[in-house]
This record gives sequence, C-alpha cells and structure tokens, in this order.
Amino acid sequence: MEPKHPQKGGFAGDLRPGERVTAFFLVRHKQLEPFRDRTKGEFLTLTLGDRTGQVLARVWEGAPELAETFEEGDIVKAAGDVEEYLGRTQLIVAKLRRAQDNEYDLADFLPATEKNIEEMLGFVQTAAENIADPHLAALVGRFYNDADFLDRLAQAPAARRLHHAYLGGLLEHLTEVLQLCEAVLRLYPEITPDLLRAGAMLNVVGKLREYSWARDIDYTDEGRLIGHVMLVDEMVSRALEQLPDFPAELGLRLRHMLASHRGRYEWGSPRQPMTLEAIALHHVENLNTQVSRFRDLLRARREPDQAWTDYDRLLGRQLYAGAADEDVTPEEPGPSE
Amino acid sequence: MEPKHPQKGGFAGDLRPGERVTAFFLVRHKQLEPFRDRTKGEFLTLTLGDRTGQVLARVWEGAPELAETFEEGDIVKAAGDVEEYLGRTQLIVAKLRRAQDNEYDLADFLPATEKNIEEMLGFVQTAAENIADPHLAALVGRFYNDADFLDRLAQAPAARRLHHAYLGGLLEHLTEVLQLCEAVLRLYPEITPDLLRAGAMLNVVGKLREYSWARDIDYTDEGRLIGHVMLVDEMVSRALEQLPDFPAELGLRLRHMLASHRGRYEWGSPRQPMTLEAIALHHVENLNTQVSRFRDLLRARREPDQAWTDYDRLLGRQLYAGAADEDVTPEEPGPSE
Amino acid sequence: MEPKHPQKGGFAGDLRPGERVTAFFLVRHKQLEPFRDRTKGEFLTLTLGDRTGQVLARVWEGAPELAETFEEGDIVKAAGDVEEYLGRTQLIVAKLRRAQDNEYDLADFLPATEKNIEEMLGFVQTAAENIADPHLAALVGRFYNDADFLDRLAQAPAARRLHHAYLGGLLEHLTEVLQLCEAVLRLYPEITPDLLRAGAMLNVVGKLREYSWARDIDYTDEGRLIGHVMLVDEMVSRALEQLPDFPAELGLRLRHMLASHRGRYEWGSPRQPMTLEAIALHHVENLNTQVSRFRDLLRARREPDQAWTDYDRLLGRQLYAGAADEDVTPEEPGPSE
Amino acid sequence: MEPKHPQKGGFAGDLRPGERVTAFFLVRHKQLEPFRDRTKGEFLTLTLGDRTGQVLARVWEGAPELAETFEEGDIVKAAGDVEEYLGRTQLIVAKLRRAQDNEYDLADFLPATEKNIEEMLGFVQTAAENIADPHLAALVGRFYNDADFLDRLAQAPAARRLHHAYLGGLLEHLTEVLQLCEAVLRLYPEITPDLLRAGAMLNVVGKLREYSWARDIDYTDEGRLIGHVMLVDEMVSRALEQLPDFPAELGLRLRHMLASHRGRYEWGSPRQPMTLEAIALHHVENLNTQVSRFRDLLRARREPDQAWTDYDRLLGRQLYAGAADEDVTPEEPGPSE
Amino acid sequence: MEPKHPQKGGFAGDLRPGERVTAFFLVRHKQLEPFRDRTKGEFLTLTLGDRTGQVLARVWEGAPELAETFEEGDIVKAAGDVEEYLGRTQLIVAKLRRAQDNEYDLADFLPATEKNIEEMLGFVQTAAENIADPHLAALVGRFYNDADFLDRLAQAPAARRLHHAYLGGLLEHLTEVLQLCEAVLRLYPEITPDLLRAGAMLNVVGKLREYSWARDIDYTDEGRLIGHVMLVDEMVSRALEQLPDFPAELGLRLRHMLASHRGRYEWGSPRQPMTLEAIALHHVENLNTQVSRFRDLLRARREPDQAWTDYDRLLGRQLYAGAADEDVTPEEPGPSE
Amino acid sequence: MEPKHPQKGGFAGDLRPGERVTAFFLVRHKQLEPFRDRTKGEFLTLTLGDRTGQVLARVWEGAPELAETFEEGDIVKAAGDVEEYLGRTQLIVAKLRRAQDNEYDLADFLPATEKNIEEMLGFVQTAAENIADPHLAALVGRFYNDADFLDRLAQAPAARRLHHAYLGGLLEHLTEVLQLCEAVLRLYPEITPDLLRAGAMLNVVGKLREYSWARDIDYTDEGRLIGHVMLVDEMVSRALEQLPDFPAELGLRLRHMLASHRGRYEWGSPRQPMTLEAIALHHVENLNTQVSRFRDLLRARREPDQAWTDYDRLLGRQLYAGAADEDVTPEEPGPSE
Repeated sequence: MEPKHPQKGGFAGDLRPGERVTAFFLVRHKQLEPFRDRTKGEFLTLTLGDRTGQVLARVWEGAPELAETFEEGDIVKAAGDVEEYLGRTQLIVAKLRRAQDNEYDLADFLPATEKNIEEMLGFVQTAAENIADPHLAALVGRFYNDADFLDRLAQAPAARRLHHAYLGGLLEHLTEVLQLCEAVLRLYPEITPDLLRAGAMLNVVGKLREYSWARDIDYTDEGRLIGHVMLVDEMVSRALEQLPDFPAELGLRLRHMLASHRGRYEWGSPRQPMTLEAIALHHVENLNTQVSRFRDLLRARREPDQAWTDYDRLLGRQLYAGAADEDVTPEEPGPSE
Repeated sequence: MEPKHPQKGGFAGDLRPGERVTAFFLVRHKQLEPFRDRTKGEFLTLTLGDRTGQVLARVWEGAPELAETFEEGDIVKAAGDVEEYLGRTQLIVAKLRRAQDNEYDLADFLPATEKNIEEMLGFVQTAAENIADPHLAALVGRFYNDADFLDRLAQAPAARRLHHAYLGGLLEHLTEVLQLCEAVLRLYPEITPDLLRAGAMLNVVGKLREYSWARDIDYTDEGRLIGHVMLVDEMVSRALEQLPDFPAELGLRLRHMLASHRGRYEWGSPRQPMTLEAIALHHVENLNTQVSRFRDLLRARREPDQAWTDYDRLLGRQLYAGAADEDVTPEEPGPSE
Repeated sequence: MEPKHPQKGGFAGDLRPGERVTAFFLVRHKQLEPFRDRTKGEFLTLTLGDRTGQVLARVWEGAPELAETFEEGDIVKAAGDVEEYLGRTQLIVAKLRRAQDNEYDLADFLPATEKNIEEMLGFVQTAAENIADPHLAALVGRFYNDADFLDRLAQAPAARRLHHAYLGGLLEHLTEVLQLCEAVLRLYPEITPDLLRAGAMLNVVGKLREYSWARDIDYTDEGRLIGHVMLVDEMVSRALEQLPDFPAELGLRLRHMLASHRGRYEWGSPRQPMTLEAIALHHVENLNTQVSRFRDLLRARREPDQAWTDYDRLLGRQLYAGAADEDVTPEEPGPSE
Repeated sequence: MEPKHPQKGGFAGDLRPGERVTAFFLVRHKQLEPFRDRTKGEFLTLTLGDRTGQVLARVWEGAPELAETFEEGDIVKAAGDVEEYLGRTQLIVAKLRRAQDNEYDLADFLPATEKNIEEMLGFVQTAAENIADPHLAALVGRFYNDADFLDRLAQAPAARRLHHAYLGGLLEHLTEVLQLCEAVLRLYPEITPDLLRAGAMLNVVGKLREYSWARDIDYTDEGRLIGHVMLVDEMVSRALEQLPDFPAELGLRLRHMLASHRGRYEWGSPRQPMTLEAIALHHVENLNTQVSRFRDLLRARREPDQAWTDYDRLLGRQLYAGAADEDVTPEEPGPSE
Repeated sequence: MEPKHPQKGGFAGDLRPGERVTAFFLVRHKQLEPFRDRTKGEFLTLTLGDRTGQVLARVWEGAPELAETFEEGDIVKAAGDVEEYLGRTQLIVAKLRRAQDNEYDLADFLPATEKNIEEMLGFVQTAAENIADPHLAALVGRFYNDADFLDRLAQAPAARRLHHAYLGGLLEHLTEVLQLCEAVLRLYPEITPDLLRAGAMLNVVGKLREYSWARDIDYTDEGRLIGHVMLVDEMVSRALEQLPDFPAELGLRLRHMLASHRGRYEWGSPRQPMTLEAIALHHVENLNTQVSRFRDLLRARREPDQAWTDYDRLLGRQLYAGAADEDVTPEEPGPSE
Repeated sequence: MEPKHPQKGGFAGDLRPGERVTAFFLVRHKQLEPFRDRTKGEFLTLTLGDRTGQVLARVWEGAPELAETFEEGDIVKAAGDVEEYLGRTQLIVAKLRRAQDNEYDLADFLPATEKNIEEMLGFVQTAAENIADPHLAALVGRFYNDADFLDRLAQAPAARRLHHAYLGGLLEHLTEVLQLCEAVLRLYPEITPDLLRAGAMLNVVGKLREYSWARDIDYTDEGRLIGHVMLVDEMVSRALEQLPDFPAELGLRLRHMLASHRGRYEWGSPRQPMTLEAIALHHVENLNTQVSRFRDLLRARREPDQAWTDYDRLLGRQLYAGAADEDVTPEEPGPSE
C-alpha cells in the first residue's frame, strides 16, 4: 500500500513482525492497565488506525504520563517495533506524541476511492447537463448545480461496509450506475431515458445525510432513524415544491422510483417497483452493489495466494478467488489472428 | 338494514327472492348481451350497488334503448322483482331511470361508520388542543386546525378492505388509537406523552391522499405508487419547514415513529422501531387494526347463526363466532351484588 | 395485429362483436354438448387459438358430423360471426374445415419475437467467434458452430410465461444479456471477460431441452423433472469430456457460474455465487429477465389507455403504465440544441 | 443502585476501579489456576454475582486452602480492591468467607421488580373477584384463591431474558396486561369481558412451571421440553375437570385463547387466533411484552448519556435513547392555560 | 369402482354420459330454481354424492313437490340419465325418493381404507400388548384396552385431505408408522424402544376428537380451535393422573415427543424435537405422511395414462406418474438366476 | 476412549489436568511467540489433535530450534504434563519429535466409524448385486464393481460436520438408508423397488468428490463450487452414456430422484420431488441424517451426567439427554410373562 503522502510512514495494514516503524496513526482506543505485578504500575494499550486497518499497540514505560498528552480521535506520531503476540501483530511503542495539523493528510486515515474524483465529478455533471427534459433537468440541477452538494458528493461513501465503503465511494457508485443505465436504455426503448437517469442521480442525495465520515464511516442519527429512502424523498419533495410547473405525474413516477429502488419489502423498501423505470433502476443499483461487494471482499484477502476469502457472515459463505490466475489467462491464440 | 334516508328504498344486501322492490342504486357495471335466440335481440345485465353490497339485475325488454340513457357510475331508480337463479339473487327490472341529484343521499351508496362523526371529530380536536408541548401542538395544529383537513378526515376510510374500510373509518380508528395510547401512557412513565399522541394524530394524515372514496373506496395513484408512509413524511416534513423553531431531535424522533409504525420490513415499513414511542405506536396501531379486522369479518357473516365465517384468504383461516351466545352470557350472579 | 402471412385472416386477439370473419385457427379444445332441449341433439364448443390469444366458438348445426372431421391440435379454416355472450366474445361458426399444410404458416399460431432472427443469430455467432481464450472458444464452439443447435436456438422461447415467452425469445434474451455483459466488463477489470461471455452463452443451452414449442410453449418432461440448471451442466460436462486439455480450474469456475446463476437457493439454485463472474452473470440475467417481464406485462394491457395492468399473481401487484404518455415526453428543449 | 438491605455492601454493577469494597456475593463460578511461574502454585478465579450483574474476582494468596471452604452457589462475604485489567473490572480479593444465612437477603442476589408486590397481588385478586360469570369466576378462583399459587406468582419472572425478566416480573406483566384489557374492552363491546379477563389471568399460570428462580432465572426441564403453552393447557384442563358444570363451548373458547395467544405458528403458537377474545389477548400480551422489552433495554444502558444502546442480537438493531431529554420536555405553556 | 354392497347401484365417480343409472346417493345440496321462462315454474338442482365423488343432478318435472320430501343429508334412491352439459357430467333425474335405513350401507358414502380393519386393529393391539415397560404399557393400555376407543380408531381418518383422508385411514397410518418405528429401532440402539412405540401409539388419540366423519370428513370445532397436538396432551395428561407411579421424567419425555412431533414451529408445532425419540417420531410420521400423500395424489388421476397429475396448490407442483409402466418393469433376468 | 492402536498413547479428548502423557498427535497449528520479558526469547504454542479432539500445547524451552524440526500437518511424538490454565486444558511439552511413518496409524488421527467396514462394504455390494432390473444393475455396477470406488467409499465421511462426519461415515449412512428403504418398500407396493435402491446407492457417489479427508474432513474446491447434487448428476450422466440401451424414461426418473433428494429449494435442492421414489428417497435420507445428527450431538456431551447438550447454533436449541437412564429402563415385568 503506497502512502498518499510520503510523510505518513508505514500503514497499519502493512506492518510485519520484526519491522521498526515510525508513522502517523489515528487513536481509535486508549486504555491504561495495571501490570499483573502491581508494583510495576500501569501500561498503555492503544488501538491505532489508518485507512488500511488498525493495529494493537502497547506502551510499557511512562504510560500514565504519556496518556495525559493525547485523546482518542487524535492523530499521533508513533515509533516502535512490530511483534507478534498470541497470533496478533502488535506495535511496542518506544516514542509517541500528538501530531500537528500540518504534519499529515486526513485522507490517509480513512479508506478512499482509487479513481480520479475530478473526472468522476465531471462525468456526473455532464450527465446532469445532458438531461433534455426541462423539468427533470431543473430538478436535477437544484442538486448538481450546487457547489456544496458537489463537495459533499465528492467525499461521501456509498455504504458503511457493504460496498464502495470508502471516501468517494458514492460518486464512484453513481458513475457506474449511470453507465449501466445507458446500457439498459439501449435495450429498452420503452423506458423514458431522462427519467431513468434523473432517478439514478437523485437516488444518491439521501446518502449525504445518512452517513458521516469525519473520523470514521458511520451512520448519522437521522441515517439510522429515518433512513436513506425517506431522506431522499424529503429532499426531492422539497425541491419539487420550488418547481411549480413540474408535471404532477412525472413527479409521481420519479418519487415512485426512489421509493421502490430497494426492490423488496424485506430489504427495507416501502414500495415495490411498479413501473419500467423503477424495476430498471432497482436492478441496475443492485447489480452494481452486489458485484462491487464481491470485488471488495476478494480484494480484502490478506494474502494474494489465498484461494478462499474468510467466511462472510452477511453473505453466509466464503468467496473463491481461485488457485492461480495463470490458467485462466488466454494463451496466445497463435499466428492466425 | 335501516336506510339512512327513507327515500332510498330497499338495500342490495336485504333483497330476498319473491320481493317486489323500488329503490335507488349505483350502477357499477352495465352490459348489453344477445339472447341465445338471436332474433330476440339483446337484453341488459347490470350490477347495482349500494353501501350494503350489490345485486345482479337484468332488463329483458327495451334494453338497447334504455342502455343509452345512463352510464356506469350513475345513480338510478329501479323497480322490479327479486328472483333466485342458479343460486344467486337477481333483480328482474321492470322500470329504471336515471336519478336526479336531489332524490338520494350519497351516504347510502358507500358503507359508513355507525359512530357519531361530530362526536369523534370533537374528541380528536380536543386531543389536539390538549397537547402541552408547544412545538408538537403547533405542528399538530397545522392539520387539526384546518377546516379542509377536518372535512376530509370526517369522510376517509382507514383502509381499502382490511379494517375500518368505510366512510368515517379513519376517524373512528384514530379515536380508538388515541384511547389505547392513554392506557399505554398510564403504564409507561418513560414514554413522552405528547410525542406518542402527536405521532398517533399525524400518522393518519397520509391516508387522506392514499385513498379515494368518491364512488368506491380504492387506492389513489399516489397511494399505490408512493404509499401512506412516504406521504405522511412528506406532509409532516413540509409542515416542519414552516416551524423553524421546532427542535431538531424532536422532529427526528417524531419522523422516526411515523417511518417505523408498520413495525417490520416485510410489512412495508422502511424502518424498524428504535424508540419507546415508536414501538408503542406500532403496537397500538396494530392492536386496533387487527382486532377491528376480526370484528368486521365476524360482522360480515351472512347468517347470525353461522358458527364460522367464510375462509379469509389473507388471514389464511376461518374465524369462529360461536355456537350460541347464550352460554357465554354470565348468569345472574345473585342477590349479593 | 398484422398477420405475418396474408392468408391467415383475422386474429383471435382482434375479433370484435359484429364482425364477420374467415381465418385459420389452431383447435385447442373440442367438445360436443347437448342442447337443453334434448330433441335438438348436440352442438359443438371449440376453443380456437393463434399467436394472439384464443376465442370460444360454437357450431350450432351439423355438429356431430363435423366433429368427426378434425382433431384437437389441427389447424382449421373457419368462417362465422363474432358475438358477445355473457361478457365474452364468441365466434358463431358457419363453416369450418381442416386446413391443408400449405395453406398456413405455423408462425402465426405461436407468439414470436419481433426482432430479426438472422441479425440476432449473427450477433451471437460473432460473439462466439470473438472469444480469444482458446479453451473457452473451443467449448463455446461445440455449440455455436453446430447447425442443429443454431436452428433450435433460433426458435426456442426463454421461458414458458415469465419473460421472452415467445418463439425466438431465448435468442433475444441472449443478445440482451451479452450486451449487458459488455457494460459490466467496462466497469470491472477484475472480471475475466471471456469467462463471463462464455458463461452467458452456455447458460442458455439447457433451455433447448427444457421447453417444447411445437404447438404450445410448455415444459418438456425432462424440463420439469431435471430442470434447466442440471441440463446445462450435463451438456457442458459432456462437451468438456471432449476437450481433454481444458484447464481443470477454468472448468470449475465455468460450471460454478452455471450452477449458481439463479443466485439464491429459494429460487431453485443449487449453488450460491462465490466468484466475481458468477455474481455478475446472475445479476445480468436477473436484470434482463425482470425488466423484460415488466415490459411484457405492460405490453399485454388490453387497452392502451389503461393506467394499471391487471393484478399479476406471481408479482403480487399491478403495474403502472401511466396516465398519458404526453406529460412525460420531453418538451422541445429549444433552439440552443 | 441502592441496596435493598444495608448489610449487602457494594453491588457488582456499581464497582469502579480504585474502590475498596466489602460485600456479599453469590459465587457463580469457581476455578483454581496455576501461575505461569509454576513454582508459585495456584490462584483462584471467581465469578461473583448479585442482582445487578457480576464481576470477575481473583484470590492470589492461599487460594487452594480457601477454595475448599465454599462451593459454587454459595453466598460469600468478600473484601478487596477493584481494578481494571484488559478493559474488564476485576476484584482482587483480600478476604473471603462463606456467609451465614442470617447475614443477607436472597432478594439482593436476583434482579427484582421495583413495584410493590402486595399492591400488585391485591390488584389481581380484586380482578379475579370481579369476574361476574360464575363459571369463569370458579375456574379463575381455583388458582387465585390458592395461597401457594399466589406465593409463587409473587416471585416468578415473566421471561428468562426478554421482558420483565426479574423476580415479581410475571405479576407486574399481569397487572399491566389486565389494565390494557380494560382499555380494549371499552372499545369493543363485541368482546365478552370476563372471557378476556379470565384468559389474561390464566395465561400466566404455566410460567410458574416454565421457569425456576432459586439462584438464577432459567428454564425448568419441563419449561424447555413441554413449554408454557402446553403447561397452561394442562393446568386449565385439569381445573375444568373439577368443574363439571362448566359450559363446554365456553371452555373451548377459553382454551383456544390460551392455545393461540402467541399469535403465529413461527412464534411457537400451536394455533392462530380465530376469535375476537383470542386476537385481543394476543395483541395485548404482545404490546406489553415488546414495549417493556424496549424499556428494559433502554434502562440497561451503562451510561445515561449514551444515545444508542448496544446492538441487540435478537432484535437485530440498536435502540435510540436520545441525545438529551431536555429538548423533548414541554416548556411552560404559559399563563393562558 | 366396485360397490361394497351390491344394492348401492352406480357410483358418482363412475357415471358416464349416455348411461341410465339407478343408485343410492347422499344429498349434499338441494336448491329450487326458476326456469328462465318463468311460466314453467321451478326445477330442482341437487348435488348427489357417495364415497367416490359427487355429481350434479336436475329434476325438471314436479320439482317443488318432490323437494318437500327429503332434506340435505338424506340418502335417496335416484334413477335417470347421465348427460354432459358445458363440460360437466350431470344426472337428469326421472325418479327419486328418500331411502329407508335398511336399503344402504353408510360405508358406501364416504371413502374408506382398502385394508382389512380387523387385521390392522389386531396389529396395533398386539403392539400395545408387547410394550414391556410396565408404566408405558399401563398408559397405552388405558386407550388400547378401551373398546370405545378401538371402535372409533377403526373408523377415523388420519387427516381431512392431506393423507389417509378416508375412513380407517388413521388406523392404516398408525400401522405403517409402527412398522417404520421398528426399522428405525434396528438402526439406533440409543433409542428407548418402548418410548418410541408408545409415542407413536399415543400420538393418534387426539385425531379422534379433531375430525368428524359422520357424513363428511371435516374438522370438529375443537379440532379447529384447540388442535390435535393440544388434544393429545390433554388426553395423555389426564391418563397420567390416573397412574400415580408413572415416573416423572418418563412422562416428560413422552409428552415432549407428542408436543414436538410436527417438528417445526412454522408447521404448528409448539415445541421442536430435543430428544432422540422425538426427532425419530417426527421423521417417521413425516415420511409416512408425505409418501402417502404423493401416492394418494397419483392414485387420484382421472386417467391411468395421464403422465402428470393436476397441479396441487398446497404442494405447489404437479406429480409425475410416468409415461408407461413397461419400461421400468425389470425384464426377465434370465435362466442364470 | 480406547486407542485403536496401543502405541498411540493418550488421546486429546481424554487428557486430564495432573496427568503425565506420552503420545502421538497431528500438529494442526504451530506458532513461535515472544515471552513478555523479551530477554527470555520465544516459546512455542501448538495445537495438537487426533480423532478425539485437540489440545493446546506449549514448549517453554528450546522452542526456536525445535520449531525448525517439524511442520504443521506432521505427526509428532510428544511427552509432558497436563495442566489447566484459564479454564482450558493445556499440555506443557517436555519432549517432542517428528514421528516416523511406521510408528502410528493414520486412523487414530481422524474420527472414524465404530462399525465394521468390511461388513458394511459386503452389505452394500450384496445390495448392488440383488438389483434385478438389468439396466439399473448395470448402472449401479459401474460404481459398485469398481475397486477404486469401493476403496474411497470405505473411507469417506458423509458430511463435514452435520452427521456421520467421520471416516467410514458415508458407508455407514448408506447401509442405514438401504435398510430404511426396505422398510418403506414393504409399505408401498406402488414404489418400484430397484429404482429406489439404485437411487439410494447412486446418491452417495458425489460425496467422494465433495469432501477431502487426508488430514482433516473438509470440502474440496469442487465440493464448494459445484456441490454434491451436481457432481452426482455428472457422474451418473457419464455412466449412462456408456449404457446406450438404458431406457430413457428410467434414466429421467432416476436423475430426478437424485436432483430432488434434498427436498426443498431452500435446502439447496434444484428440484422438488415429483415422483413416489423421489419423495421416498428424500424422506429416508432426511430421517437418517437428522436422527444421526441428534445421536452424534448427544454422544458428544463431555460429561455423561450432563442433562442437556451445549446450545447447537445450527439447530437453534439444546438437546436433552435426560436425568438418569434408570427410570426409563423397563422393570422386570415379572413371572406372568
């Protein structure tokens, strides 16, 4: 894993026993514990993280005093030796201090897309501008012409864990969904193109309020209590109020797509798809979500030669990465080509 | 079944073979059919309905000309003889004409609550006024101080078929839910009372747009495509925009109750209850809905001495009304009382 | 509905009361019944069908003799008057005789794709030829270089009722799936392209044995008893035996895709997807199946101005076609374009 | 947590690192372990509990001899220092001895209702006496006039974990259910009041055999193997045998309520409700169970300012307690009231 | 179908258009209807049944007078001609009169086992006598030594429709279950043999109260409201009360088997099997029930050369009887054997 | 647990704290860890297993050098003391060396059937020879006359964990299934006997490829990716190709049995049973699987006087072994017998 910024030092996911490391980490957890031999006082146990994962760390000496100098949530600079203990990697910290703001880049501490954000933003803005229907264009524009919206869209994750669960992941998901929409539109002339595109573009707006990503990717309170589907509807309904000429039936069809995009009641969808655009949006979203989820799980294998991923509890299975890539690589088909 | 208005004449649900009847009916279906002996021309088959049910009717003579004089959806005055044919009651119409607007009352043509509407309206208005929390009071007042809203609330059904599926049924349901809320509040001091009450009162507002009841009780297009849960949230969110001082967290808790009141994803709920008020509202609504549904099914038995109702496909069972009521009536407990 | 072949005459789905018609039909059902006035002997009740639907027909005169001259499953030429009786259209047959083989085209009697079969065949053959991996190319070629296979592929339906349920429907489905695969491949460089393409192409081969379409589209006995998933595996396994150099792991990955393409146990899939190619194939198939199913249900509305389809029992809902197409048509965006 | 009896000393749920404590505890688990430095012999690890929870304890000195002086299940008096080790609170025991019977009150060692038991018993006895139907009164009286039954009812929990899972919890649940029944009876004159009340009162009798609560709240063997629903039916059937004049149909309706009170097959109910009383009892029980379950989970948060509870595996979610109670407290509505 | 008693005459399931028949039938339904030409008065429509099925019948002449002479539920002697009308067989009755009690045998009017009742009774009585455990023997004997019980066991069906749904079916089911139990006992020495046998024998006793079979096989009220599982437990509990020395744990294990024999909550089982005997009894019962159900559905095909049964809604499928039995018959293996 | 071979020494499942042991074990896991006091270097943590379970082991002295002398998967000879630490038994190893091949028997290191393998093999071979139908006999013979097949059949487990999960378990399962088939055949003359027997015998062949059992019982890659049901079909289809005279319909019926033997889609069955033989095979397999699973769980209790097993997550319950076996043992029935 190559650091985004050279000063980061080693990454939590890369530490190997035997290494000596100096690097910046986010303090996720901090706790003083007594030595079993109580006469020796206390040591410090830390969980240090960055965008690649986290590592257990111990400070054996001068722990109580050091513990006063930083808080959970701080970025610290730490130096020490990497060991293996009871099968887990841990960092024995020799030196540690609170980092100064100009010493690190926050992007090193949360996972982020590997795609180019500016290019992706340009892609979706062009898509918004290409909507020909004036009503849908106006509605979409109320979001995609708004700089604040675009700033947040450039950062937000698409989910907490399931897929595209990293900074910029929502934008990446959206660009993929829009490309799949075009493929679907080529097959079904019965689908109203701008309606499908607008549905895909508006369907993400609730996620900006569903998740927070300041230090960690998590649900907001309204994300948990109200949820993405209702937040989208609130935001779109409010925008529609500002567009008095928006045709009523078009609004109905659009809101129906958003209300039913999860597809099934048991998946938290308050409506089931009942229009061609709604069923298409559901399946395009679902395809991109599930295939990306598989790709992310396969990427997350710790060893490249591991044939099977760990058991994924939500999927209820292990995934197969394969024995060796060679034998599925096409051989040279020969001179006749 | 006693007519609400004397001029109605007989009711569809009361017609018995052998009777001669003159009455007003809603024409639900109209169709000309040829006699098997084609030389005789065509006769007219009608479905005539009112709030008690519907009856098949035939016009043997002068059918083509008569058929030109009225449409499906019209109220007509019809006279004729009631017969039984292949096990079904049918009306052999001797005379029929379109009714004039002042000859009938629309309330005779759809089922309606047997409770007093004015009393029920008074009850819920008092409940609205008794909300002490000024923010919730203001929010509830935006609906319950609105004459148009109250007019529609006085008429709306609570559901298409499941429970309280008659004019005024929604209001009846609401008064019952509010009474159950008070019983629950007596048991749980941890519940914020005005929040539960406001939730119950606001939870019905979407039904005014989910159903239409002009001639028949049915879903509206937005009722089918957007649904009650999302419509409520739209209406409440819009009202909250007009109340800038409304506390954000209170709004969140309130919207959460509405978003989760169906209780389970598979019942079309986009959220599951996560607060005490939300779980209480869900169970109060559910209790009233299901017990009323049973009561309505038991009432709908055709014969009072029928021990079992017909099989109800949605419930997947027959209900038991009992052999005879006598043996469950308490005997005189004697002079000591 | 325009006949494919002028000599067909009227179509069952187009008959309107009052018309006189002469046309060819498939006899789906034939039955002699006594007149109620037994002295009059028997009449003949027929169900006559073609690719647009079916119609009830009666022969009042000379029925017993006529009934001897043809069988269920025959094509007949019938002439008579169209009437409405008890709400159903029926044909009162004046003349009827068995057709000769050269008088009609079988394609008029089963629904068929409206796409160009030759073009679609060309498309999939090109796709087969473009597979660069020599093992997969050889395997796919064992089917797509076989003239018998291509003949049957050009005719087969994709399903009995659910989607693309017409002659040529399987081929149409395959061309759509292949196009969607290309869109997916553009998004996921981690997917082995030829493996996904080969999976899509081989996944249809079992359907040629699952369905019969000689007179009606129905399951074959082995279609019901063994099913498409197992039949595909049998056919592919047999082909693999002929290719001794085929890499074992590649065969495993391919067979896994086919075994898991239905995605979930409860949908009859003996395996769940565990590779990237398998999850992609499942979602591409599912998207095309479900969106096409919606399109076919919306097409099948009897009246173009019907806003809602009939209730579909399997989907558990009605679909919404919309009030009027005008208001979702984009207005002229103006001279700047 | 205030001790019920002053002599109890500190409670397990209240211990904080740094405290010195002398208190009585129930020994839930006891185990000798060798020091890693084997030459030092063995130490003792204990789990000590009371009605507020449990704490890990260690005896470093003289452990083998001390271990001989008490058993698991004994109450002991222990003194020592509270520490935190690896994130868990533990008690380093300096002195420990078996308690004498008169030194403690068993009620300190299991969680118990905070309601007044005598008042609750009086409430249900009055309810039993107020049943006017002589047959139902006699049946209910066979239980509620029995001193042994009442003694056990005063102690039993309503469930092992789910709701009212503490001594006296069953009685508390019953008083709440009876109050909700009265609210339901006010809404539905069609319900036979004494039947609903008797059903509620008899529905709890099986729980006295389903659970044991001598040292811990757990299932009995017959609770696990036969279950509450069948045990109730056995006990009520046996009581009915003693009442030869009890009307057969009334017995049938009553037993049906008990057999179906869990509502759905998948919730372990051998019958589904088919009468008005049965559906009402089911929903009243369910409402009280679920709302109480939420209340108990919210109460069990370790910190009062925790906005969300821990994830509850059975519910599949976290519950929301809220940010701060202030903003949902109604402000003074002002002088106009 | 050969009549059990020669005087029965033809059977409903055997009537073919064109036949003249004189036979005894059970009147299931009776209704007077007017002729369309009202001047002709009324005719009589009857449903006449016996153990092989039922047939529609009409009396054209003298219907009103005849209708006075018998009731639904009576056995009548009818003579007339069999016709086909609108695809259904109907009997045009020329003569009809109420039968006298000595003219027919009730066994002709409900379907019945084809096995020998006395032999089956002997088999189960021997099984009861062979139970060596004195407690279980005494308990089983309280039923199987009771003449009334045996009389009813000889008649009862095992289910209303699902399997062995005919007179004597319960006894047939029991003998099969007992034979399967012996096969299971040979495989599992860990199972207590007499406990499994006693469980199987006692598990049927509730069915004698769950079903009535006087005129038709149907649920009793207590069958619907309380159900077989609870009725068995009531009857066995009552018998156990009469056996004060019966070991408590043995009683618990036995009642657990009965309480859990349906195996899964969603199949209406209040308990899940938790002992070896319980899981064995569940699977033995289930095997016999399901295989017999398939056999009965295959037997009920109307035509022996029908390869597929009709669609069975509960099973959700058609069953396959096969093309021709010949090719699965083993050929002569030849002289070498 | 008695060792199969005297030289094995103690078994992992039998080790008790305080014992000194010398024995052979399979090294399942090996790891060097630093002492907390880093100056002391490293110790070795091992997981040592055999067919009775596994035990944690530590080597305190000379660990780094020793660790070089053997690998995970090796059999080693170890000597040391058994201790209890933090509630777990561990072996403090004093001496350890790699074993030589002739020192141990592999059968000691994986659990194995307690039945006689030769007898069981003889039983199934006789069953294969007794198939009279020449086609089925030939097909079955292609497997059961093959020495390699029989060798593997003699070793394979029937499942990874669920039932008969030990060497020889598949053969044991098969002999039991065949015996149950005979019991079923005695009850249902409608079942074709040789078809049922052949189905049972062929249904196991895929398991030889689904599982590996070289060192541990686990799925193979094709077991996970293709699965037992498809592998069986592949192997049977290939065998059928070699038998050109095999009747087509018989092949269809046989493959249907194999394709549907899991019974329900949600249990991973690509087909549901539609023939009598298929439903019988499913229930016979299911009975043997589930009863054996219960027996194995009850056997695995650590203490013979434990009334309940541990909670089984897949079953969702604990199983009941009973208080004491005495009271279910039949007393002497006395001299009168």
